[in-house]
Amino acid sequence: MNQQIVSHSIQEITHYNRVLEGNKRYVSKKLATDEYYFKNLSKGQSPKYLLIGCSDSRAPPNELTETDPGEIFIHRNIANLVIPTDLNLNCVIQYAVEHLNIHSIIVMGHTCCGGIKAAMTQFSVGGLLDLWLNQIKMVYEKHQDLIESLENEDDKVNCLSSLNVKAQVMNIWKNPIIQKSWQKGNPIMVHGWLFRVETGYIEELLIDSQTPEEMSKVFALKFKLDSERILQKQASRQTSPTNNTRKRFQLMQKKITQNLKKLKENGGRIEQDIDLQQLGELIQNS
Amino acid sequence: MNQQIVSHSIQEITHYNRVLEGNKRYVSKKLATDEYYFKNLSKGQSPKYLLIGCSDSRAPPNELTETDPGEIFIHRNIANLVIPTDLNLNCVIQYAVEHLNIHSIIVMGHTCCGGIKAAMTQFSVGGLLDLWLNQIKMVYEKHQDLIESLENEDDKVNCLSSLNVKAQVMNIWKNPIIQKSWQKGNPIMVHGWLFRVETGYIEELLIDSQTPEEMSKVFALKFKLDSERILQKQASRQTSPTNNTRKRFQLMQKKITQNLKKLKENGGRIEQDIDLQQLGELIQNS
Amino acid sequence: MNQQIVSHSIQEITHYNRVLEGNKRYVSKKLATDEYYFKNLSKGQSPKYLLIGCSDSRAPPNELTETDPGEIFIHRNIANLVIPTDLNLNCVIQYAVEHLNIHSIIVMGHTCCGGIKAAMTQFSVGGLLDLWLNQIKMVYEKHQDLIESLENEDDKVNCLSSLNVKAQVMNIWKNPIIQKSWQKGNPIMVHGWLFRVETGYIEELLIDSQTPEEMSKVFALKFKLDSERILQKQASRQTSPTNNTRKRFQLMQKKITQNLKKLKENGGRIEQDIDLQQLGELIQNS
Amino acid sequence: MNQQIVSHSIQEITHYNRVLEGNKRYVSKKLATDEYYFKNLSKGQSPKYLLIGCSDSRAPPNELTETDPGEIFIHRNIANLVIPTDLNLNCVIQYAVEHLNIHSIIVMGHTCCGGIKAAMTQFSVGGLLDLWLNQIKMVYEKHQDLIESLENEDDKVNCLSSLNVKAQVMNIWKNPIIQKSWQKGNPIMVHGWLFRVETGYIEELLIDSQTPEEMSKVFALKFKLDSERILQKQASRQTSPTNNTRKRFQLMQKKITQNLKKLKENGGRIEQDIDLQQLGELIQNS
Repeated sequence: MNQQIVSHSIQEITHYNRVLEGNKRYVSKKLATDEYYFKNLSKGQSPKYLLIGCSDSRAPPNELTETDPGEIFIHRNIANLVIPTDLNLNCVIQYAVEHLNIHSIIVMGHTCCGGIKAAMTQFSVGGLLDLWLNQIKMVYEKHQDLIESLENEDDKVNCLSSLNVKAQVMNIWKNPIIQKSWQKGNPIMVHGWLFRVETGYIEELLIDSQTPEEMSKVFALKFKLDSERILQKQASRQTSPTNNTRKRFQLMQKKITQNLKKLKENGGRIEQDIDLQQLGELIQNS
Repeated sequence: MNQQIVSHSIQEITHYNRVLEGNKRYVSKKLATDEYYFKNLSKGQSPKYLLIGCSDSRAPPNELTETDPGEIFIHRNIANLVIPTDLNLNCVIQYAVEHLNIHSIIVMGHTCCGGIKAAMTQFSVGGLLDLWLNQIKMVYEKHQDLIESLENEDDKVNCLSSLNVKAQVMNIWKNPIIQKSWQKGNPIMVHGWLFRVETGYIEELLIDSQTPEEMSKVFALKFKLDSERILQKQASRQTSPTNNTRKRFQLMQKKITQNLKKLKENGGRIEQDIDLQQLGELIQNS
Repeated sequence: MNQQIVSHSIQEITHYNRVLEGNKRYVSKKLATDEYYFKNLSKGQSPKYLLIGCSDSRAPPNELTETDPGEIFIHRNIANLVIPTDLNLNCVIQYAVEHLNIHSIIVMGHTCCGGIKAAMTQFSVGGLLDLWLNQIKMVYEKHQDLIESLENEDDKVNCLSSLNVKAQVMNIWKNPIIQKSWQKGNPIMVHGWLFRVETGYIEELLIDSQTPEEMSKVFALKFKLDSERILQKQASRQTSPTNNTRKRFQLMQKKITQNLKKLKENGGRIEQDIDLQQLGELIQNS
Repeated sequence: MNQQIVSHSIQEITHYNRVLEGNKRYVSKKLATDEYYFKNLSKGQSPKYLLIGCSDSRAPPNELTETDPGEIFIHRNIANLVIPTDLNLNCVIQYAVEHLNIHSIIVMGHTCCGGIKAAMTQFSVGGLLDLWLNQIKMVYEKHQDLIESLENEDDKVNCLSSLNVKAQVMNIWKNPIIQKSWQKGNPIMVHGWLFRVETGYIEELLIDSQTPEEMSKVFALKFKLDSERILQKQASRQTSPTNNTRKRFQLMQKKITQNLKKLKENGGRIEQDIDLQQLGELIQNS
């Protein structure tokens, strides 16, 4: 047999084995600083975030944000799409919202995205993917004038990447699981990020709606929570805030976010520049 | 408003901002060692692996294996399921196999899995998830006697986690995209891993079939590749090995894997202990 | 242009127009016997049955059973499959059960089925369909010995058609919407039919489980209906039977079915041979 | 037990048995006029149409058009939706187009549709259905002004039913299976129908695009058919028209349709009023 093929094959398989060797190094390092690290990890997870990202190998959420195992619940698919009828992702959302009680959902797109590029050409990429990418083409069609007004090819792709994230965030707001959660008084926040592969920086995108109430009434859903409220009332007397308080909590959260955004735009860093106590008082009085 | 809620809310949002601060630290560090790091990353991806893992926040594949951005193409869902009719995952597989030409697919499950636990109880976890977890219940039913013979509750869960990975690996072999790729001569390998959260170690699972040929004939598919072969023949005269060579390449890969497994079982480490040249010769002559 | 093609094309389009002419004839006939027929039809639907059948053009449920518009709610797909994660069919089931309060679900397969035949060969029928037919291959693998013991090719196909219906009926029992409905006290019945194209007759198949309680405990789901019960209690005092009565209603229905089956096996025809009053008394006293 | 419940239950089950009795009557009638009817039917199907309709019990396609078993391949779901990523429907389309070589696809909606009504209110109809109906809400949002300008509630519902059919027809044109078929030279036609339950009549809707070429370039797909063409060329020399002829065949079909539409608008009936030979000559010379 061709000697070249043999050595290529051995190379592939030793590479695979190196990945497993990496795991051994990782465990050693972790145990060196905390011998109970994995014991503690095995007790359970309580992540604050659900991140919906692209399967692209260059966009691993934990690395990019220096977050630890246990912090982010993650789903990754081709081009970070939120397709309303996708059972796979909807199960992830349901688990994250109803069982893990996450605080925020983040849709993270990225520049140089192969899925976005494919959706911009007319060439078929194969039966299944053509169906999937249709969702991106819908965004493309809606903003065709804006995108095609750009001269640079990369700018076009990245513009669609950014618009695609925003469209998927809107799909999150339209989702019945999210809307039900808001009506129960859990104010899940939804963020749109664009990871710029060429600089490494994550960019927060400005989203049209920051609460489900801001989107078109057509998509707003009302749930029969009466029966749940009866039980909740009895349970909540001791443990949880009243519905009225929750409503104000949702409003407040929005205000804090807006204030922090202004601060950041002015170059401030959160930990140093904000007197949290003072901020709290400001908001309470506003 | 309740002072407690205000401070809780501020805490949540500053936490979210810290995640973004983490990204800035990450970029600084990377640029400090290689100022062209992200420039190079933006040129494209050519990962060798597709990893299908669980959305669980404690199981981030890159950290656990100390692999870099660009190395692993990733899909994560509830309980790392490979459901034949799931368009989301099938698109990921198609993109990875047909467009990225990945070398291996890894299904990684883990111990202490909430999805597995939920599938073992009789309590409904909500309409969508009940439908999804049905796939795990199928594995549970098939191996009920084995699982229930175990005494410890954690052992039962981890036994099903392990059996679930094996079942999903078999679903990969049954997949038409994978089978077509083999028939075209690209010998994609499929691995099953169990990440033991309580120790940090990844365990390679013994899979029944190491090639699609080893599974039940019922699921084996034959593709009409005649027309593609006509074109391929003309193209391949210069660039690629003949079909016959590819067939032998597939067989060889299997042999190498088996030999390396034996080595590892005897405690050897790959880089040190194997005379790759010698191995190649052994295989060629066998 | 080729004269042959022109006339072929005209033929096709006049044929299409004849279908629409057929609609005009249909309306005339209906109005001739009842001038308010469509007015009444437009008031709403309250079908008693959901039928899940094959898309095959030879198997139109209403014709085959001489039932009228308004009697059967219908879903038809390739090979009448009930795939747990199929949102399309699950929405049909949810609408039929929760909004139309149907009484029975019927899965109807048929002999000479192209989908079944395709699943029995090893030839790929195209990416999407290969994924779909995997569900049939699972049934085939389970009963391979039985099917391959048959000599005649048609017998093999029809045997798998029949086993496939039974497997899909079991998938209905496993469905959370059906199980929830039973726990709420609505005893939906599930039937399996095989339409024998070559004779025109519909054959009722013997199903392993006639209630969800009879299937493997692994798939049994328990729902938190406490909160719903609180409200229901208050509402039900006037209008509906107690839970206890509902339970007995379910049992009774099973008994009636069994008694009727025996009658039919002995060649009886229902309308003539059964003194319903007497049957009711028998059951009440048993 | 309550005597009322017993008799209700017996009533339900005798009703079910009457459906099966209907099948026996049907077979007798058919055999009376043609003793080989079912024998012939069992030889295979070659329907010319795929109809995608609503599951509504009042809209059985064959009755409404007085067509026979064997003429129409049928899929029915909630509100006759064509969701791009729906594997269930896509498999039906693939089978109909690639294996049965159907001539036309018909999307048939209807007035008084429960799914359409549900999508127009803000009340949740349950987790799964909310996700499904999102597709209708998208159509509603796009045409909100038009719909809400109507005064009568039924008019609003029927207007959305009609717009929904048109939107789903466009989704058929965007489908890769359909586009591929056109590029191979098979000019599948797509029609939109609205069944008016209150009158019984089927209304043909005016669709924006009558060929895939007329829709937005964004959704147009190009397929690599080179390899297939090589084989096709060799095969086609004897049996089938050249690609050039096919192209003209597609154009002609469009012309015939337009001419027939005009005829119908002027009150003509096809069989009587058209000299087909003359029409053929007209078109060939135009």
